[in-house]
Formats: sequence, structure tokens, C-alpha cells
Amino acid sequence: MRLILLSGGAGKRLWPLSNTNRPKQFLPVLRHEGKAESMLQRVCRQLSGAGLGEALLFSAGLGQRELIQGQVGDLAPILEEPERRDTFPAISLASAYLHSKEGCDPDEIVGVMPVDGYAEDSFFQALGKLPGVLAGAGADPALLGVAPDAPADKFGYIVTQQPAEADGSLRVRAFVEKPSAARAQTLIDEGALWNCGVFVFRLGFLLDALRQRGLPADYDELLGMYKLLPRQSFDIEVVERTKRIVAVPYQGRWKDIGTWNSLSEEMEQQVSGSGYVCPDSSGTRIVNELDIPVGVWRVPNIVVAAGPDGILVTDREASAGIKDLVAQVEITPRFKETGWGRKTVLIARHAGETESLTNRAVISAGRFIGYHEHGRRKEIWIVIAGAGEACIDGQTFPVEAGSVVVVEPGMKHALLAYSDLELIELQIGRKIEDSDMIRYADPWMAKEGKGEEQNHEVPARR
Amino acid sequence: MRLILLSGGAGKRLWPLSNTNRPKQFLPVLRHEGKAESMLQRVCRQLSGAGLGEALLFSAGLGQRELIQGQVGDLAPILEEPERRDTFPAISLASAYLHSKEGCDPDEIVGVMPVDGYAEDSFFQALGKLPGVLAGAGADPALLGVAPDAPADKFGYIVTQQPAEADGSLRVRAFVEKPSAARAQTLIDEGALWNCGVFVFRLGFLLDALRQRGLPADYDELLGMYKLLPRQSFDIEVVERTKRIVAVPYQGRWKDIGTWNSLSEEMEQQVSGSGYVCPDSSGTRIVNELDIPVGVWRVPNIVVAAGPDGILVTDREASAGIKDLVAQVEITPRFKETGWGRKTVLIARHAGETESLTNRAVISAGRFIGYHEHGRRKEIWIVIAGAGEACIDGQTFPVEAGSVVVVEPGMKHALLAYSDLELIELQIGRKIEDSDMIRYADPWMAKEGKGEEQNHEVPARR
Repeated sequence: MRLILLSGGAGKRLWPLSNTNRPKQFLPVLRHEGKAESMLQRVCRQLSGAGLGEALLFSAGLGQRELIQGQVGDLAPILEEPERRDTFPAISLASAYLHSKEGCDPDEIVGVMPVDGYAEDSFFQALGKLPGVLAGAGADPALLGVAPDAPADKFGYIVTQQPAEADGSLRVRAFVEKPSAARAQTLIDEGALWNCGVFVFRLGFLLDALRQRGLPADYDELLGMYKLLPRQSFDIEVVERTKRIVAVPYQGRWKDIGTWNSLSEEMEQQVSGSGYVCPDSSGTRIVNELDIPVGVWRVPNIVVAAGPDGILVTDREASAGIKDLVAQVEITPRFKETGWGRKTVLIARHAGETESLTNRAVISAGRFIGYHEHGRRKEIWIVIAGAGEACIDGQTFPVEAGSVVVVEPGMKHALLAYSDLELIELQIGRKIEDSDMIRYADPWMAKEGKGEEQNHEVPARR
Repeated sequence: MRLILLSGGAGKRLWPLSNTNRPKQFLPVLRHEGKAESMLQRVCRQLSGAGLGEALLFSAGLGQRELIQGQVGDLAPILEEPERRDTFPAISLASAYLHSKEGCDPDEIVGVMPVDGYAEDSFFQALGKLPGVLAGAGADPALLGVAPDAPADKFGYIVTQQPAEADGSLRVRAFVEKPSAARAQTLIDEGALWNCGVFVFRLGFLLDALRQRGLPADYDELLGMYKLLPRQSFDIEVVERTKRIVAVPYQGRWKDIGTWNSLSEEMEQQVSGSGYVCPDSSGTRIVNELDIPVGVWRVPNIVVAAGPDGILVTDREASAGIKDLVAQVEITPRFKETGWGRKTVLIARHAGETESLTNRAVISAGRFIGYHEHGRRKEIWIVIAGAGEACIDGQTFPVEAGSVVVVEPGMKHALLAYSDLELIELQIGRKIEDSDMIRYADPWMAKEGKGEEQNHEVPARR
């Protein structure tokens, strides 16, 4: 089975930690064996544990390539959507890739899974059974359905035909989107399952669906007309129009981590990062990515989330509604996670025609910022921790805490970290946007005999 | 009347905006005519408005000289206590200064006033009447008493003899410290007043009190033995042992701004700084000194205070108790207001024997950092906004946004701001504490013909 992991999506409901540079599935807010882990990293780890980690394909948002590589390495090919258009276009494009770029057979089974669900390991065991059920039932597609533990009104329900088949699967009779709690209870009593967006199909099923809509099955052609594809979910565009569907029930815990409340329920500790909640503040959680502490005094049942983009104080139960608040306070994202590390804007200045950004950057050990130049932007680096090597106009030299490098406009520059390299970078000039850039072959890549489009890792030195 | 302004005191109850570098009376959290103003600035403005601003003397905490000069200029002499020891030592030292350094007559009237009260302008009119009352009543001292508007249990009460004298003053019968609300109501019914710590006396009265305790009336002598003085309030040590005391009632508003709750009651707007409170969060206040926004979603009656030292979320009513929380989260103060401007630590690093501090500093237009050198510390400056002039080892040169200056250990350096000069400063070395410093005569002072102990202002250039 080839598995398409849907990692697109922006998600403002986890502001200020999520932003357009770092959607919620990339936030390192979960924990595993004492270390922070993102939803993406958790799902990839669980897939690998279930023996499903070998044939993955990422369907990602524009600009997420480096973020995915930074978090899970070169686990699988990454397809970036040219623009955000919902799941039908995304799944179609990934399927066309499997067909025309990887030469997959139409009988090959393809699975689809969002990376922002939160489930037990047995969820992935159940996923592994879907291809067998699909073949046995002669149906297309086969869905994974979550046995509900409450009549939630925020999910889609899969209405099933009882009793189950011999293999444990259930015929699907209908779909009901976000019913009232009362209606949801009735559906549950009749055996309905939550639709968690996980399903499998034969590749040929999807190729047929493209053909019926007059759409090409060739990846490049489909990519070229991506902006014309219907902005529609795969569920509505394809699944709900299909007659022979089966579902496999999953009995364990599953949740959609989409709000501060649902996320905070999965936190092992009351405080993540630097902070303190006084004993009278039961139910309160702190998620703090800043260097400075957060203290909560006698305010129960809130979430305080603090990061470079802002500080949120929200009632836990009401946290699903913060979109209106985000519209009031959102600023240009200050935090960015990249393939080489992470960068935070500390100070942004506009004085007349001169703009400046003062950034704090950490280049992860063994990675580097590739060789490039800017036409209008001057950069000044001060290294504050770690050690590495800079390359300026073809000259390489070591840098360490206390080193200063001045890069005038038009000078080629690259920076490699031996150990985690922390620096202050001032960007200053008339217009300092990233488009003012010319890329060159990376000096260290050349040494290692790799092209510039390879990954951003070189062997550790020192 | 000479007026001693008591500006000492640390105050952790307004954490994180107040810290040992900036006690609460220096916080710019009030507003006047659309501009931010501190309690100190407000009191000085009101004194000046009442014609009482000409003969002031600051009794300040250690290290507060630059802070006071930065906020109110060279309004009055500043005496720094060698250490914090309560109001009896502080008032005694200031009185000895008036006696032995300024040659004040024993019959001169001396007033005492803390700078962290919050009152209407008529309060200062009432203060102006105290010297006349003192002379007419033949009493010593004369107190200003606030007519209570509630039976508060957190204040001291002045119990008076009714009816009032012809001049409106009242004989004082006793003092009651922090009575229960019920007892407070009885006292109020009998005409008691709140003790707001404002009083006047003849200088000779205090000199007698020193003599009775075997303490010197000479400033230098008293300063030399300051650490031996009783750690006691002036009220308890002197006033409450005195028989002939009068009080003048003040009928207007007065409050002790000592907690986030009392401070937030005086805020003109719900949000100070960048932030947004959603409509369902009535009674909630934001005080934000950070560059990033604070958003509150559906949490009523809290104060969110954010600054370089941390972020506090507290129930308003309970905010008087945050001391316990501060003990848990307090970090080395990151914010410092100085005579030349302000400085914030952005990043603190300890790697092996090497320490580094990355600071953001703003030198106010026309001011400068004096000429000095460090034995072990290297400094790197990047100017990010404004214009000025640096002096390194006797060479002066202009600096502007984008300028980089590297100051090796042992190099003399000074920096002058033509316009507000914002810079990133990296301090790096083996031990970078401020004691590793040698001061020199300031280069611009020499040009202007002033000594280095003069104020830190030079004429504006450009």
C-alpha cells in the first residue's frame, strides 16, 4: 500500500504557536519518551511502528518542504500544492504522481491519512487491515471509522449497515456531517462511526474518477491546471457519490487535535516550557515557547500559549472560537522553522525607505544555509553560540561565539554549523524580501559531491 | 517647606513589569494627556502644579539615581540609601543631609511623601496647608489623613479627636494598623482617617529624635553607620511615640497603587500596549510592554501583564498575593532603565567558561553611554535605527543603521545618540559582570566643558 500523508492546512486555531510558516501539525507540543514531538513526527513514528512507514508520499502545502524535511528527514517524496485547494485536488495530484511518475499499477492500493489526528498505536494496525478488506469486499473505497465515545456534534458520521461482515467490516449506507448531539446519539445507537478522513482505494478507482471529470491522470498536466480544480473535499467530491463503500471500525482513542482545549488534554504536564501555575488554578495549562517565564495566579481552566508571534490567554472550553481574536491581533509571522533550523524575528523596523529585520537564528548541527546573494540587502551576523564555517565570495573561514561577519549586497554567502550555531542576523536594506536572492551551488555540497537540490545535511565535523 | 520624596522600595507585587532594576513607582503605566507616565512622574508633575516642586529631595534606593534622572531629569538632589532599611533610617538620612549639607535651620518645615500614592490634584493643595497647621497647632508632626471611602483592612488608621479645630485640623488620639473591616467601620464612624504616609515636621523635631537615640545629625557620619540603624518605619519609631500630633483631612480620592488590581483600576483603556480583549471578557486588562500582541479570549476579570522579565496572568481580586508566584518564576531582571535610555537582555548564554548576553539597547536622543573599558568583556554593537557617534580609544566616528562596531577587551568606548539610537549589543567574555569596568572622562563632556559627573545630556546635533 502506498500511503498519501496529507500535511497541508494552515490552522489559526492554535495561534500564536501555529502560523502560516508552521501549521499545527508541525508544533512540537506532544511528548514521547521525554522528548517533544509534533503531530507529524508522532504519526510518522506510529506508521513506522506498524510497518507502514516504507511507502509514504507527502501531500504538503506550499513552502512546507523544508519544514517536513527538518522534522522527519528524507522519509518520503514531498509534493507541494501550488496553492491550497482542499483534499480532492491534493489527493488527485498525489495519485497522478504515483501513476505517472512512479509507474504504480492501477490495482495498487493507495491509502490517505491526515497527519493531524491523534490516535493510539492500534489505529495504525487497523489501517493496515484496510487493503485486505477492500479486496475481500469488492468495494472502493474502504474507510477507517472511529467508534464514537460521545455524541460529538463537530464530526462527520459514517452510517453503517448492521451486522458486520465476516471480516469485521461494515457496509456504508450514508454520511451525516455534523449532526446535532441528539441526532448523533441516535446514529451511534444504530452503529455509526466517526469519519476520521482515513481511507484506502485502488489507484485505478481514482484514475477513473479523474477521467470521468475530464481531468488528466498525468502529474505534470494536472499540476499545470491545479488552480482550475474544484475547491472541494475528497469526501464530498468522490466518496459520498460512490455506492459500494465499506468501513472498518477502530475501537480505541482518536481525536482531532485542532483546538487548544483538545491539545491541552494530551499534555503530560501542566506546563510546557518555562512557567508556573499556582495550586488554585486547576485545569489551567501553559504552553510557552519564549525564553521568559509565564506565571498564572488563581485563574482556573485556561490555556496560556506564548510564542514569538504573540501571547494567547483563552478559556479552555471556548478555545475553538479564537479565530475572531486572531484576526484582531495577528502579525506577520515571526517564527519560521526551515530545513536548516529555525529563525525568529526579534525586531522589525521601517525607517523611511530603509527596512531592517533583526533575527535570531539557530542552524542545526551539520546543516547549513545554502550559498546565495542578495541584490539590495546587507546582512550582519554575530555568532552567539556554537561553531561553524562561513563562506563569503568563495573564501571559507571558521566562525564561533563572538565572530562578526558583514555581508554587503552582492556578496555570495553561506553558513555551515559544526555544532548548533546560534546567531543574531541583521538584514538591512531598501526592500529586504526573500525574492531579492540569487542561489548558487553550495560550497560544502560541491565538496561532498552532491547537487544543490539534495538535502541540507553534511557529515558532522569536529 | 523642603519635601523629601521617598522613592525607595522594590515591590514584587507588580511583577513582571517591576523588578529590582525598576520598582513599581517607575513603571510607565499611567497616562496623562495621551502619554504614558509613571507614578514618580505623576507625583512630580502634581507637586509642580501645586507650587511645591521647587525644594524637593529624593530619598532613593541604591542604583535608582539614573532611573530618577532618566524620568524627571535633574529636578532635585538624589540621596541613594546604602541599603534598604525602611523609612526611619531613610528619613533620618535625608534630614541629616538638609541639616549638615544644606544648612537648613531647625525651624525649617520638612515634608515627607512616598511617590507611589495616587491622588487627585487637591491632595497636593491639602499638603500645602500642613506647614501652617503645624505652626498654628504647636504640634509636631502634622499628618495628612485621607477620608476613607470604605472600611479597608489593609491600611493604617489615624484615630482623631472630634470636633475639628478652627483651622480644620484634628488632634490625633491614636493609630490603629490594619484593623478588621468591622473595627475599621467603627473607627470611620468615629472620624478616623487613613494614614497615607504624608506628614510634615520641624527639622529640629527630627534632629532631637536623632539626639535622643544617640545618633549623629551629620550626614556623612549617619551615612557611615547606616547599616546599624534600626530597620523600622518612621511611623512606629517616631510618630506613634509622639504626644502632640495633628492631622489634616483630605476628602478626595487617594489610593495605594501596590497591586495589579489597584493599578488596573486607574487604567484609562482596557489594553495598554499591543493586544486585544474579546467582548466576553469584561473586567479584564492587558498591560503589555513586549513587541508581540497579547490576546484574551473569554476570560473575565484578569490582568495579563507582559514584559521582558515574564508574563503574568492573574485574577484581579487575588492579585495582591502574587508574591508566592513570583518566587517560583522570577529570573534575573532582563529590563533596565538607565540615565541614558533602556536596555533589555534578549538572550543569555553560558557555554563552558564563556558567558554572553545579547542586549537590545535604546540610547535616548542627546544622551550617551559614558567612556569606559572592560578588562575581560568583548562587545559588538550593531546599530539598527537612529544615528549617533561612537568613540573608540580616542577616535570618534559616526554610526547609523547598519553600522557595526567591535570593542575588544581593554578598548575604551563610548556611544552618543543624535536621534534615538537603537542597537543590538553582544557582550561576550569569561565573566561579564559590570564590575569589570574602568570609567574615563566622557569625550563629549570634555568638548562641552562639563565634568563626567554632570548629567548625561549634550546639545542635540544634526
